[in-house]
Amino acid sequence: MFTPPDPDFAARVRASFERQEAMRTIGAELTAVEPGRAVIELPWAKPLTQQHGFLHAGMVAAAMDSACGYAAFSLMNADAAVLTIEYKINLMAPAKGERFRMEGQVVKPGRTITVADGRAFAIDGGREKLIATMSATLMAVTGRNDIQH
Amino acid sequence: MFTPPDPDFAARVRASFERQEAMRTIGAELTAVEPGRAVIELPWAKPLTQQHGFLHAGMVAAAMDSACGYAAFSLMNADAAVLTIEYKINLMAPAKGERFRMEGQVVKPGRTITVADGRAFAIDGGREKLIATMSATLMAVTGRNDIQH
Amino acid sequence: MFTPPDPDFAARVRASFERQEAMRTIGAELTAVEPGRAVIELPWAKPLTQQHGFLHAGMVAAAMDSACGYAAFSLMNADAAVLTIEYKINLMAPAKGERFRMEGQVVKPGRTITVADGRAFAIDGGREKLIATMSATLMAVTGRNDIQH
Amino acid sequence: MFTPPDPDFAARVRASFERQEAMRTIGAELTAVEPGRAVIELPWAKPLTQQHGFLHAGMVAAAMDSACGYAAFSLMNADAAVLTIEYKINLMAPAKGERFRMEGQVVKPGRTITVADGRAFAIDGGREKLIATMSATLMAVTGRNDIQH
Repeated sequence: MFTPPDPDFAARVRASFERQEAMRTIGAELTAVEPGRAVIELPWAKPLTQQHGFLHAGMVAAAMDSACGYAAFSLMNADAAVLTIEYKINLMAPAKGERFRMEGQVVKPGRTITVADGRAFAIDGGREKLIATMSATLMAVTGRNDIQH
Repeated sequence: MFTPPDPDFAARVRASFERQEAMRTIGAELTAVEPGRAVIELPWAKPLTQQHGFLHAGMVAAAMDSACGYAAFSLMNADAAVLTIEYKINLMAPAKGERFRMEGQVVKPGRTITVADGRAFAIDGGREKLIATMSATLMAVTGRNDIQH
Repeated sequence: MFTPPDPDFAARVRASFERQEAMRTIGAELTAVEPGRAVIELPWAKPLTQQHGFLHAGMVAAAMDSACGYAAFSLMNADAAVLTIEYKINLMAPAKGERFRMEGQVVKPGRTITVADGRAFAIDGGREKLIATMSATLMAVTGRNDIQH
Repeated sequence: MFTPPDPDFAARVRASFERQEAMRTIGAELTAVEPGRAVIELPWAKPLTQQHGFLHAGMVAAAMDSACGYAAFSLMNADAAVLTIEYKINLMAPAKGERFRMEGQVVKPGRTITVADGRAFAIDGGREKLIATMSATLMAVTGRNDIQH
C-alpha cells in the first residue's frame, strides 16, 4: 500500500530497534517490518507486572509506541530520525496473557507528520484478545545531531 | 482542595504502589501522596533508555500513568479499585536528565469517572525541564474480584 | 459482528439524532445505522467554514463525535443514555470538498465503557479522501433524569 | 511568560479569527489575546444544542480548538499559518449554562510544534463550572499557498 523512499527501510528499522535498551529490558522483539507496518512481541514477565500480576499498562504502551514509531520510520527518508509527538491509548482489557503482540500501522504518512494506529493483543491459552488501541503522531526530523535514527 | 472519602487514603495508595513489580523494576518511588495528587520519581538507568541514551518515552509514560492513577485512587472509596481507561501523552522534549519527577493531579473527581493531568520533569544538572504532559481518564471499579486495589 | 441488546436500536438512534438541533444546524444527516456503526453526512456550507473556506475542523469533529456516539448507542440497552467521556481527533488534511462522510465504528463495546473509532472523508469531484481519524470513549448512563437518550 | 516574535501578534490573531465564518455562525467572540493565550466566549443558542438542550459538545470543542490554535498562533512568526494536528478533549460535565468561556494556553511553544491546553467553563446563574479540558498539538506552516494565516 505504501512505497518507502528508502529501499533499505527494514534494515534501518531493525538497527534502530537494536539500539533501544528499554526494548531489550522488557524482552521485546521486532517480529515484522513492512512498508508502514511494524510488529513487536514480548512475553509476560513478573518484573513487568502491575498489582494484579498482569503486564503493566506502561509496558504495553511502551511496546505499542515503538511499533507505531517504527511503522512511521519505515516510510521516512534514510537520513531522517523519528520522534513521537504524542499518542493516545485506550486500555480495553487487562494485559492478561503469556505473550503479547503489538502492531503499528501507518494511517497517513507525511513529509513531516505521520499518523499511525496501534493495536495490542494478549495471547492467553492460544486465544487472542484485543487489549489496547493507540493513535499516535510521529514527526520526521532531519539535521539535528542530538536525535539520530 | 479535595476531601478524600477514605481518611487512610495515603496508606492505601502506598500499599497498592508497593505491589507493582514494574514500578520497582524501573526504580520508581512514590515520593508524595496528597488528596488528588501523587508524585513518582525515578533515576536515569541505562536499561531504560532509547536509542539516544535518554529515558525511553515508554518509561516516562508508565510512571506518569501511575502518578495519574494514584492521584485518582487517593479520592476513591476504600473498597474501590482504579483502572486507567485511556490517556494521552504529549512528549515535548527528550527525557534527558539524571532524575525524573512525574506529578499526577486530579482535575475532576467523580463517582465513576475521574480526570487527571500529569506532568513529567527531567532534572539535569540541577535544572528542571517539562518534558511531557498527560491527560488521563480513570475509572473506579468495585465488586470485581479480578481487579482489586 | 455485534448483536445489539435492543432490537429497535436503529429507531432509537434515529430518534435521538433528530433531537439534536446542532446536527440540523450544520446540515448533518444520519445516513446509516447498523449494530455498532453509524454514518453521518453533510454538505459543505459557507457558514461552517474556517479562514481558508474549508469546512471548520470543529464541524468535522462534531459530526464524527456524533457518529462515534451513535455507533456506541446502537449497542446499548434501551433505557441507557450515551455520554462522550473523551475523544481524540487527528486532522490529517484540510476539509476541502463538496460533501463529507463521517463513520463511527465500535471497537470494543462494554457494559459501562465503549470504545469507538471514527473516520472522516471529504468527497471532492467524485474522489474521496481521508481527512480525520477519531478515537472516542463513550459511557452508558442509566437512571439519571437530566441525561436521557 | 512568552515573548512573541511578532509584536503585532494580537492584530494578526484577531484578523484571522474574523475570517472564520464558523465562529460567527456559532456566535463566538475572541475576548482576549495575550502572548500564548486566547479566550473565546459564546452564548447559549438553541440551534447549537444537543438532545437535552445543552450546548452540543461539538460546539464546545470547536471553540476550544480555536482558542488553543490562536494561543499557539500568537507566538508564531508573522508569515506562519497555524494548523491543528490533533487534540484530545475530556468532557466532564454537560455544557449547561447561559454563556461559555473557552481558554487556550500554550504549554510549550516550538519552532514547528506547539502544545496548548484548553479549558471550557459554563457560566450558569453567575456561577462558573469547568466542563471540558483539551490538550492540543499545533503546527506552524510556512510557504504553502493553500494555508495562510
